[in-house]
Amino acid sequence: MQIIPGGVTAAQGFVACGLHIGLKKSRKDLALILSQRPAKAAAMFTKNLVAAAPIQVCREQLAKGKQIQAIVVNSGNANACTGPEGLEHAWRMVKKTAQVLGIGEDQVLVSSTGVIGQRLPIEMIEAGIEQAAPLLSPEGGAEAAQAILTTDTFAKEIAVEYADQGHTIRVGGMAKGSGMIHPNMATMLAYITTDVNISAELLDRALRTCVDETFNMITVDGDTSTNDTVAILANGAAGNPEITQPDASYGAFCKALSYVTEKLAKDIAKDGEGATKLVEVQVKNGATVAQARQIAKSVAGSNLVKTAIFGEDANWGRILCAAGYAGVDFDPGKTDVFIGPLQVAANGGALDFDEELAKEILSQDTVVITLDLKQGDRSATAWTCDLTFDYVKINAHYRT
Amino acid sequence: MQIIPGGVTAAQGFVACGLHIGLKKSRKDLALILSQRPAKAAAMFTKNLVAAAPIQVCREQLAKGKQIQAIVVNSGNANACTGPEGLEHAWRMVKKTAQVLGIGEDQVLVSSTGVIGQRLPIEMIEAGIEQAAPLLSPEGGAEAAQAILTTDTFAKEIAVEYADQGHTIRVGGMAKGSGMIHPNMATMLAYITTDVNISAELLDRALRTCVDETFNMITVDGDTSTNDTVAILANGAAGNPEITQPDASYGAFCKALSYVTEKLAKDIAKDGEGATKLVEVQVKNGATVAQARQIAKSVAGSNLVKTAIFGEDANWGRILCAAGYAGVDFDPGKTDVFIGPLQVAANGGALDFDEELAKEILSQDTVVITLDLKQGDRSATAWTCDLTFDYVKINAHYRT
Repeated sequence: MQIIPGGVTAAQGFVACGLHIGLKKSRKDLALILSQRPAKAAAMFTKNLVAAAPIQVCREQLAKGKQIQAIVVNSGNANACTGPEGLEHAWRMVKKTAQVLGIGEDQVLVSSTGVIGQRLPIEMIEAGIEQAAPLLSPEGGAEAAQAILTTDTFAKEIAVEYADQGHTIRVGGMAKGSGMIHPNMATMLAYITTDVNISAELLDRALRTCVDETFNMITVDGDTSTNDTVAILANGAAGNPEITQPDASYGAFCKALSYVTEKLAKDIAKDGEGATKLVEVQVKNGATVAQARQIAKSVAGSNLVKTAIFGEDANWGRILCAAGYAGVDFDPGKTDVFIGPLQVAANGGALDFDEELAKEILSQDTVVITLDLKQGDRSATAWTCDLTFDYVKINAHYRT
Repeated sequence: MQIIPGGVTAAQGFVACGLHIGLKKSRKDLALILSQRPAKAAAMFTKNLVAAAPIQVCREQLAKGKQIQAIVVNSGNANACTGPEGLEHAWRMVKKTAQVLGIGEDQVLVSSTGVIGQRLPIEMIEAGIEQAAPLLSPEGGAEAAQAILTTDTFAKEIAVEYADQGHTIRVGGMAKGSGMIHPNMATMLAYITTDVNISAELLDRALRTCVDETFNMITVDGDTSTNDTVAILANGAAGNPEITQPDASYGAFCKALSYVTEKLAKDIAKDGEGATKLVEVQVKNGATVAQARQIAKSVAGSNLVKTAIFGEDANWGRILCAAGYAGVDFDPGKTDVFIGPLQVAANGGALDFDEELAKEILSQDTVVITLDLKQGDRSATAWTCDLTFDYVKINAHYRT
């Protein structure tokens, strides 16, 4: 497996574009992805009861079981809490996209990200979709990745390729993080394209497994958005025999997909609002994966842990404390805690560690926190960022 | 019912003191409360698996079913994550207190609050307990309330009295909040004393009901401490016939206890680290109390909601969004949202409200957020504070 350029247009048979249509002041705000042949699709959405209009539309579209060819995304407005009119607008985005691309209306997915509770300027978006169609290109991945950003400070894209039985298979993706230049933009969007030939069932299974281990293991501020979406399109253009069993070919595909989702997830955590560091929380030797995940997420979600890391303070008591309220059973009196390679607590108690060295480790761009539960052999990793003055600054004043 | 001075020494037969023994630089750091006659006791402790040594000792003490006479509390060191030695130290605090007061060792409760993972200077504390005994006084409530503080900016105490069948009954309490001058002091402690004559069973029931509606409905940063304790002593000195039924006398006592716990809980929320405002989240017309509470707590716990309130930004989308991920069912499309008396959303959608008026409401010391679910007739209230630059400042750098 190797990393290649191209993002969502790295896989064969995918074209994309990103352009500025006026929803945001000057940055690109509309992205379009097209698979030149119908693609199997799988997707996962926010579990927030307040699901935005495009989420409701995508759920309906996927329930039809048709193959998908296009995804249209606008940034700058979330089309959430917009009532029946918002739903009508999301459908109009679908219909316009189908019309300009000459594909079926049931072959389009739609996303929005931006402020909650504001009416979508639908005429502007329909005009934008018309402008977008002729711009679609096999080199358009990078522009599409730009067009879905909100407060993100960098575009997030990645692609890999690997060989399977003489066929070159490519998996590429792009994502936006939960930065919020306007206050309600707590949205994570990720789109993955691949030319692998795989059954719809296994595509769905691979996506769920990878999302559980990556996107579902990141947290910036614990606020689950109304618009979260991860979608994958697999158009089979690689020409490999269809993967229909959880065999070695399925394993190879999962490995590539997992690499793509993990890279995008870590980029989102790293680019959290106001963040200065990526924080990786590893829980080792747990009894079950569920237990290890729960503890990793609890530590990653702790405001106190995240603020201490911003302050480069080796405050291991907060780490163990956050594990303690994770809601799963473990023995704190057996747990070891490490900051980077430096052990700071043994069996739940203090060690006389080198504070200067700890501070140096905590001053790096990436900080790895490890809890060793010494209970079994299951592990989990969660990612987050530090909690900084800029988080408060970004989120205090920006709506009005 | 009327408010009276005296805090934990307002009720008849209670004396207390607070003094500086050297755990903190100059502020008082040891509190002692004595009931001059044995008192029925009830208590609730942190649900964190990483429970500090004094929590473990209190659980054992209460399991013995004996009446309690004294509570000893130190601030400046949490005696948490301190292993078997920490447990031994907590027992030594109990024994020394029993010895100097001439009461049974099974009649003492103990608490600690401060940094996690540091050895308790037990000799200093034992000497302090000897110093404390002669200082006990019926006017000592205010000093005791000072001595349990950490980063709190003000002492939290309250007392009320009411008449029941010709008897004057008093309920008083003190608490500390989850400010953290040293990084691990995320501890809530509250002690309530009353001279009511009540059965142990009903005392426990009254405490649980009131704690669920007050202390368990506040959040500062979502980090559950290792040392949380709420304890009540009822010594019967008021001379009322023992309350043994959930009758009118029980109701009157619950009303007084509820007032005391709510006042202390709101003071803790208001004095959260870096806070500039008390935020009250009311959920109205829910289907069940559990549903209403879950939604109120979810909104109160949202970093985004709290940061917007700091910024005085009427960002109602964040409020509805936080309700949406509370994990309980409701209809966002039927929900109304109010900021103070101003309605900002109807049936889950935007209203064209007066932004200037909203900003003025949000600039007050206390901000009330209301969600009307229009589903049933059950309500709940949660309290929190805003999330500010000072929260980050206080917690980033203070351990080392």
